[in-house]
Amino acid sequence: MDFTEKTISSRDIYNGRIVHLKEDIVLLPNGEKAGRELVLHNGGVGVIAIDDDKNILTVTQYRKPYDRLVLEIPAGKLEPGEEPEKAGLRELREETGYLAGKCTFLGKCYPSPGYCSEIIHLYLAENLSWAGQHLDKDEFVEVKKIPLSKMTEMVMNNEIFDAKTCIAVLKADKLINKAK
Amino acid sequence: MDFTEKTISSRDIYNGRIVHLKEDIVLLPNGEKAGRELVLHNGGVGVIAIDDDKNILTVTQYRKPYDRLVLEIPAGKLEPGEEPEKAGLRELREETGYLAGKCTFLGKCYPSPGYCSEIIHLYLAENLSWAGQHLDKDEFVEVKKIPLSKMTEMVMNNEIFDAKTCIAVLKADKLINKAK
Repeated sequence: MDFTEKTISSRDIYNGRIVHLKEDIVLLPNGEKAGRELVLHNGGVGVIAIDDDKNILTVTQYRKPYDRLVLEIPAGKLEPGEEPEKAGLRELREETGYLAGKCTFLGKCYPSPGYCSEIIHLYLAENLSWAGQHLDKDEFVEVKKIPLSKMTEMVMNNEIFDAKTCIAVLKADKLINKAK
Repeated sequence: MDFTEKTISSRDIYNGRIVHLKEDIVLLPNGEKAGRELVLHNGGVGVIAIDDDKNILTVTQYRKPYDRLVLEIPAGKLEPGEEPEKAGLRELREETGYLAGKCTFLGKCYPSPGYCSEIIHLYLAENLSWAGQHLDKDEFVEVKKIPLSKMTEMVMNNEIFDAKTCIAVLKADKLINKAK
Protein backbone atom coordinates (compact mmCIF):
# COMPACT_ATOMS: atom_id res chain seq x y z
CA MET A 1 0.00 0.00 0.00
CA ASP A 2 1.20 3.50 -0.86
CA PHE A 3 1.01 5.63 2.30
CA THR A 4 2.04 8.86 0.53
CA GLU A 5 -0.19 11.90 1.02
CA LYS A 6 -0.69 14.00 -2.10
CA THR A 7 -0.78 17.76 -1.52
CA ILE A 8 -3.94 19.36 -2.94
CA SER A 9 -3.41 22.90 -1.70
CA SER A 10 -0.95 24.82 0.47
CA ARG A 11 -1.56 28.03 2.40
CA ASP A 12 1.17 30.19 3.94
CA ILE A 13 0.27 31.37 7.43
CA TYR A 14 3.43 32.97 8.81
CA ASN A 15 6.99 33.56 7.69
CA GLY A 16 9.20 34.24 10.69
CA ARG A 17 12.91 34.36 11.39
CA ILE A 18 12.90 30.85 12.89
CA VAL A 19 9.77 29.12 11.67
CA HIS A 20 7.58 29.22 8.60
CA LEU A 21 4.05 27.97 9.26
CA LYS A 22 1.74 26.67 6.57
CA GLU A 23 -1.34 24.54 6.29
CA ASP A 24 -1.65 22.00 3.52
CA ILE A 25 -4.69 20.02 2.46
CA VAL A 26 -3.69 16.48 1.49
CA LEU A 27 -5.32 13.48 -0.13
CA LEU A 28 -5.00 10.43 2.15
CA PRO A 29 -4.40 6.87 0.87
CA ASN A 30 -8.14 6.17 1.39
CA GLY A 31 -9.18 9.08 -0.85
CA GLU A 32 -10.29 11.33 2.05
CA LYS A 33 -8.94 14.85 2.55
CA ALA A 34 -7.12 16.03 5.68
CA GLY A 35 -5.44 19.22 6.91
CA ARG A 36 -1.74 19.22 7.81
CA GLU A 37 -0.25 22.01 9.92
CA LEU A 38 3.43 22.26 9.00
CA VAL A 39 6.17 24.07 10.87
CA LEU A 40 9.01 24.51 8.37
CA HIS A 41 12.49 25.04 9.81
CA ASN A 42 15.94 25.29 8.20
CA GLY A 43 17.41 22.66 10.49
CA GLY A 44 19.83 22.70 13.36
CA VAL A 45 23.06 21.25 14.59
CA GLY A 46 24.23 19.97 17.98
CA VAL A 47 27.79 19.15 19.03
CA ILE A 48 28.80 16.94 21.93
CA ALA A 49 32.37 17.99 22.71
CA ILE A 50 34.49 15.77 24.93
CA ASP A 51 37.85 16.74 26.37
CA ASP A 52 40.84 14.48 27.08
CA ASP A 53 39.54 13.81 30.61
CA LYS A 54 36.16 12.63 29.19
CA ASN A 55 34.27 15.73 30.30
CA ILE A 56 31.38 17.00 28.17
CA LEU A 57 30.97 20.72 27.51
CA THR A 58 27.40 21.73 28.39
CA VAL A 59 25.59 25.03 28.02
CA THR A 60 22.71 26.07 30.26
CA GLN A 61 20.42 28.78 28.96
CA TYR A 62 16.95 30.20 29.48
CA ARG A 63 14.46 28.70 27.07
CA LYS A 64 11.34 30.79 26.61
CA PRO A 65 8.95 28.00 25.51
CA TYR A 66 9.47 26.25 28.89
CA ASP A 67 10.17 29.39 30.97
CA ARG A 68 13.17 27.70 32.58
CA LEU A 69 16.88 27.06 32.27
CA VAL A 70 17.72 24.04 30.11
CA LEU A 71 21.04 22.18 30.04
CA GLU A 72 22.05 21.23 26.49
CA ILE A 73 25.00 20.50 24.28
CA PRO A 74 26.14 23.50 22.20
CA ALA A 75 23.76 23.92 19.26
CA GLY A 76 22.35 26.35 16.79
CA LYS A 77 20.16 26.70 13.77
CA LEU A 78 21.39 26.46 10.21
CA GLU A 79 21.23 29.29 7.72
CA PRO A 80 19.86 28.21 4.31
CA GLY A 81 22.54 26.22 2.47
CA GLU A 82 24.92 26.19 5.43
CA GLU A 83 27.09 23.11 5.94
CA PRO A 84 26.04 21.47 9.26
CA GLU A 85 29.51 20.43 10.48
CA LYS A 86 30.93 23.89 9.90
CA ALA A 87 27.94 25.48 11.67
CA GLY A 88 28.30 23.07 14.58
CA LEU A 89 31.98 23.85 15.09
CA ARG A 90 31.19 27.58 14.90
CA GLU A 91 28.49 27.24 17.58
CA LEU A 92 30.86 25.19 19.76
CA ARG A 93 33.51 27.90 19.47
CA GLU A 94 31.08 30.77 20.08
CA GLU A 95 29.26 29.22 23.03
CA THR A 96 32.08 27.42 24.85
CA GLY A 97 35.29 28.93 23.49
CA TYR A 98 36.70 25.61 22.24
CA LEU A 99 37.98 24.55 18.83
CA ALA A 100 37.86 20.86 17.88
CA GLY A 101 40.65 19.02 16.06
CA LYS A 102 38.40 16.04 15.27
CA CYS A 103 34.71 15.97 14.39
CA THR A 104 32.65 12.81 13.78
CA PHE A 105 29.09 12.68 12.41
CA LEU A 106 26.73 11.08 14.97
CA GLY A 107 23.60 11.02 12.82
CA LYS A 108 20.63 13.26 12.18
CA CYS A 109 17.33 13.34 13.99
CA TYR A 110 13.77 14.50 13.48
CA PRO A 111 12.58 16.19 16.69
CA SER A 112 8.82 16.26 15.95
CA PRO A 113 8.07 14.42 12.71
CA GLY A 114 4.30 14.81 13.03
CA TYR A 115 4.26 18.52 12.20
CA CYS A 116 7.82 19.93 12.01
CA SER A 117 10.42 19.68 9.21
CA GLU A 118 13.47 20.41 11.38
CA ILE A 119 16.46 18.07 10.97
CA ILE A 120 19.08 18.23 13.72
CA HIS A 121 22.57 17.09 12.69
CA LEU A 122 24.67 15.73 15.54
CA TYR A 123 28.46 15.62 15.83
CA LEU A 124 31.04 14.38 18.31
CA ALA A 125 33.93 16.85 18.74
CA GLU A 126 37.30 15.78 20.17
CA ASN A 127 40.88 17.07 20.46
CA LEU A 128 39.65 20.35 21.97
CA SER A 129 41.77 23.48 22.30
CA TRP A 130 40.85 26.77 24.00
CA ALA A 131 40.36 29.76 21.71
CA GLY A 132 38.03 32.08 23.66
CA GLN A 133 34.25 32.32 23.99
CA HIS A 134 32.50 34.60 21.52
CA LEU A 135 28.77 34.84 22.29
CA ASP A 136 26.26 36.77 20.21
CA LYS A 137 25.19 39.89 22.10
CA ASP A 138 21.74 38.37 22.77
CA GLU A 139 23.10 35.00 24.00
CA PHE A 140 23.43 34.29 27.73
CA VAL A 141 24.77 30.85 28.54
CA GLU A 142 26.59 29.19 31.40
CA VAL A 143 29.22 26.65 30.35
CA LYS A 144 29.85 23.65 32.59
CA LYS A 145 32.08 20.61 32.13
CA ILE A 146 30.38 17.39 33.25
CA PRO A 147 31.98 13.93 33.06
CA LEU A 148 30.46 11.75 30.31
CA SER A 149 29.72 9.01 32.87
CA LYS A 150 27.81 11.53 35.01
CA MET A 151 25.93 12.90 31.96
CA THR A 152 24.92 9.35 31.02
CA GLU A 153 23.61 8.78 34.54
CA MET A 154 21.71 12.08 34.36
CA VAL A 155 20.07 11.05 31.07
CA MET A 156 19.11 7.64 32.50
CA ASN A 157 17.75 9.32 35.69
CA ASN A 158 15.58 11.70 33.59
CA GLU A 159 17.52 14.79 34.65
CA ILE A 160 18.35 15.87 31.07
CA PHE A 161 15.36 16.99 29.01
CA ASP A 162 16.74 18.25 25.73
CA ALA A 163 16.21 15.50 23.13
CA LYS A 164 19.35 16.11 21.02
CA THR A 165 21.45 16.13 24.21
CA CYS A 166 19.96 12.79 25.37
CA ILE A 167 20.72 11.20 21.99
CA ALA A 168 24.24 12.63 21.73
CA VAL A 169 25.15 11.58 25.29
CA LEU A 170 23.84 8.01 24.90
CA LYS A 171 25.54 7.61 21.50
CA ALA A 172 28.85 9.06 22.76
CA ASP A 173 28.68 6.81 25.83
CA LYS A 174 28.20 3.71 23.67
CA LEU A 175 30.89 4.72 21.16
CA ILE A 176 33.48 5.62 23.77
CA ASN A 177 32.85 2.58 25.95
CA LYS A 178 33.02 0.37 22.85
CA ALA A 179 36.32 1.97 21.82
CA LYS A 180 37.90 1.17 25.19
CA MET B 1 23.31 36.27 36.80
CA ASP B 2 19.59 35.91 36.15
CA PHE B 3 19.13 34.60 32.61
CA THR B 4 15.32 34.87 32.69
CA GLU B 5 13.63 36.74 29.85
CA LYS B 6 10.70 38.93 30.90
CA THR B 7 7.78 38.98 28.49
CA ILE B 8 6.83 42.52 27.44
CA SER B 9 4.15 41.70 24.89
CA SER B 10 2.62 38.63 23.28
CA ARG B 11 0.86 38.39 19.92
CA ASP B 12 -1.22 35.41 18.77
CA ILE B 13 -0.52 34.46 15.17
CA TYR B 14 -2.33 31.18 14.61
CA ASN B 15 -4.43 28.76 16.60
CA GLY B 16 -4.50 25.38 14.91
CA ARG B 17 -5.51 21.85 15.83
CA ILE B 18 -1.89 20.83 16.52
CA VAL B 19 0.09 24.01 17.05
CA HIS B 20 -0.54 27.47 18.40
CA LEU B 21 1.92 30.05 17.11
CA LYS B 22 2.66 33.31 18.86
CA GLU B 23 5.36 35.93 18.89
CA ASP B 24 6.51 37.46 22.16
CA ILE B 25 8.73 40.44 22.73
CA VAL B 26 11.04 39.83 25.69
CA LEU B 27 13.47 41.83 27.78
CA LEU B 28 16.91 40.17 27.77
CA PRO B 29 19.22 40.08 30.82
CA ASN B 30 21.24 42.94 29.24
CA GLY B 31 18.15 45.18 28.99
CA GLU B 32 17.78 44.80 25.21
CA LYS B 33 14.54 43.64 23.58
CA ALA B 34 14.24 40.56 21.38
CA GLY B 35 11.48 38.72 19.49
CA ARG B 36 10.66 35.10 20.32
CA GLU B 37 8.66 32.95 17.91
CA LEU B 38 6.90 30.29 19.98
CA VAL B 39 5.24 27.12 18.77
CA LEU B 40 2.92 26.01 21.58
CA HIS B 41 1.95 22.35 21.66
CA ASN B 42 -0.04 20.25 24.16
CA GLY B 43 2.68 17.62 24.39
CA GLY B 44 3.05 14.07 23.22
CA VAL B 45 3.75 10.57 24.36
CA GLY B 46 5.86 7.73 22.95
CA VAL B 47 5.85 4.09 24.05
CA ILE B 48 8.61 1.57 23.44
CA ALA B 49 6.89 -1.79 23.77
CA ILE B 50 9.01 -4.92 24.10
CA ASP B 51 7.70 -8.46 23.89
CA ASP B 52 8.96 -11.54 25.75
CA ASP B 53 11.42 -12.28 22.92
CA LYS B 54 12.92 -8.76 23.20
CA ASN B 55 11.33 -7.49 20.01
CA ILE B 56 10.28 -3.84 19.76
CA LEU B 57 6.96 -2.89 18.16
CA THR B 58 7.61 -0.20 15.53
CA VAL B 59 5.23 1.76 13.35
CA THR B 60 6.18 3.15 9.96
CA GLN B 61 4.06 5.97 8.59
CA TYR B 62 4.18 8.77 6.05
CA ARG B 63 5.27 12.05 7.62
CA LYS B 64 4.29 15.10 5.60
CA PRO B 65 7.00 17.49 6.89
CA TYR B 66 9.71 15.18 5.46
CA ASP B 67 7.65 13.74 2.56
CA ARG B 68 8.80 10.23 3.46
CA LEU B 69 8.03 7.16 5.54
CA VAL B 70 9.45 7.35 9.06
CA LEU B 71 9.96 4.41 11.43
CA GLU B 72 8.98 5.31 15.02
CA ILE B 73 7.74 3.87 18.26
CA PRO B 74 3.96 4.18 18.75
CA ALA B 75 3.17 7.76 19.76
CA GLY B 76 0.53 10.42 19.80
CA LYS B 77 -0.31 13.86 20.98
CA LEU B 78 -1.95 14.63 24.29
CA GLU B 79 -5.33 16.24 24.64
CA PRO B 80 -5.36 19.11 27.19
CA GLY B 81 -5.29 17.62 30.71
CA GLU B 82 -4.82 14.07 29.47
CA GLU B 83 -2.68 11.72 31.58
CA PRO B 84 0.43 10.79 29.48
CA GLU B 85 0.71 7.12 30.52
CA LYS B 86 -2.95 6.45 29.75
CA ALA B 87 -2.63 8.23 26.39
CA GLY B 88 0.51 6.23 25.57
CA LEU B 89 -1.12 2.89 26.30
CA ARG B 90 -4.13 3.91 24.20
CA GLU B 91 -1.88 4.83 21.25
CA LEU B 92 0.00 1.54 21.64
CA ARG B 93 -3.28 -0.39 21.54
CA GLU B 94 -4.71 1.59 18.60
CA GLU B 95 -1.57 1.51 16.45
CA THR B 96 -0.19 -1.97 17.17
CA GLY B 97 -3.07 -3.91 18.73
CA TYR B 98 -1.21 -4.70 21.95
CA LEU B 99 -2.11 -4.11 25.60
CA ALA B 100 0.68 -3.79 28.16
CA GLY B 101 0.63 -5.37 31.62
CA LYS B 102 3.56 -3.27 32.83
CA CYS B 103 4.44 0.35 32.03
CA THR B 104 7.56 2.18 33.27
CA PHE B 105 8.25 5.93 32.91
CA LEU B 106 11.42 6.50 30.83
CA GLY B 107 11.59 10.29 31.19
CA LYS B 108 10.36 13.31 29.31
CA CYS B 109 12.10 15.20 26.55
CA TYR B 110 12.04 18.60 24.87
CA PRO B 111 12.29 18.06 21.09
CA SER B 112 13.13 21.67 20.07
CA PRO B 113 13.61 23.86 23.15
CA GLY B 114 14.62 26.95 21.17
CA TYR B 115 11.12 27.66 19.86
CA CYS B 116 8.71 24.82 20.73
CA SER B 117 6.94 24.03 24.03
CA GLU B 118 6.22 20.36 23.28
CA ILE B 119 7.10 17.86 26.02
CA ILE B 120 7.25 14.20 24.95
CA HIS B 121 6.69 11.68 27.74
CA LEU B 122 8.35 8.30 27.16
CA TYR B 123 7.34 4.90 28.54
CA LEU B 124 8.59 1.34 28.38
CA ALA B 125 5.73 -1.15 27.97
CA GLU B 126 6.14 -4.85 28.82
CA ASN B 127 4.02 -7.97 29.40
CA LEU B 128 2.23 -7.46 26.08
CA SER B 129 -0.98 -9.21 25.09
CA TRP B 130 -2.80 -9.06 21.74
CA ALA B 131 -6.13 -7.25 21.71
CA GLY B 132 -6.57 -6.09 18.10
CA GLN B 133 -5.42 -3.01 16.17
CA HIS B 134 -7.83 -0.08 16.12
CA LEU B 135 -6.51 2.74 13.90
CA ASP B 136 -8.22 6.09 13.43
CA LYS B 137 -9.77 6.26 9.95
CA ASP B 138 -7.08 8.73 8.82
CA GLU B 139 -4.13 6.70 10.19
CA PHE B 140 -2.09 4.46 7.90
CA VAL B 141 0.74 2.64 9.60
CA GLU B 142 2.74 -0.52 9.06
CA VAL B 143 3.64 -2.40 12.25
CA LYS B 144 6.91 -4.33 12.36
CA LYS B 145 8.61 -6.20 15.20
CA ILE B 146 12.36 -5.57 15.32
CA PRO B 147 14.72 -7.09 17.91
CA LEU B 148 15.94 -4.53 20.48
CA SER B 149 19.57 -5.43 19.66
CA LYS B 150 18.91 -4.72 15.94
CA MET B 151 17.09 -1.44 16.78
CA THR B 152 20.05 -0.34 18.90
CA GLU B 153 22.41 -1.08 16.00
CA MET B 154 20.12 0.87 13.65
CA VAL B 155 20.20 3.89 15.99
CA MET B 156 23.99 3.72 16.27
CA ASN B 157 24.30 3.38 12.46
CA ASN B 158 22.10 6.47 11.93
CA GLU B 159 19.28 4.50 10.33
CA ILE B 160 16.61 5.72 12.82
CA PHE B 161 15.78 9.41 12.55
CA ASP B 162 12.91 10.01 14.96
CA ALA B 163 14.36 11.61 18.10
CA LYS B 164 11.97 10.04 20.66
CA THR B 165 12.59 6.62 19.10
CA CYS B 166 16.39 7.05 19.35
CA ILE B 167 16.13 8.03 23.03
CA ALA B 168 13.66 5.26 23.92
CA VAL B 169 15.73 2.58 22.16
CA LEU B 170 19.04 3.63 23.76
CA LYS B 171 17.44 3.91 27.22
CA ALA B 172 15.66 0.54 26.89
CA ASP B 173 18.89 -1.07 25.66
CA LYS B 174 20.81 0.23 28.68
CA LEU B 175 18.06 -0.71 31.16
CA ILE B 176 17.52 -4.19 29.78
CA ASN B 177 21.22 -4.99 29.44
CA LYS B 178 21.79 -3.71 32.97
CA ALA B 179 18.95 -5.92 34.27
CA LYS B 180 20.54 -9.03 32.74
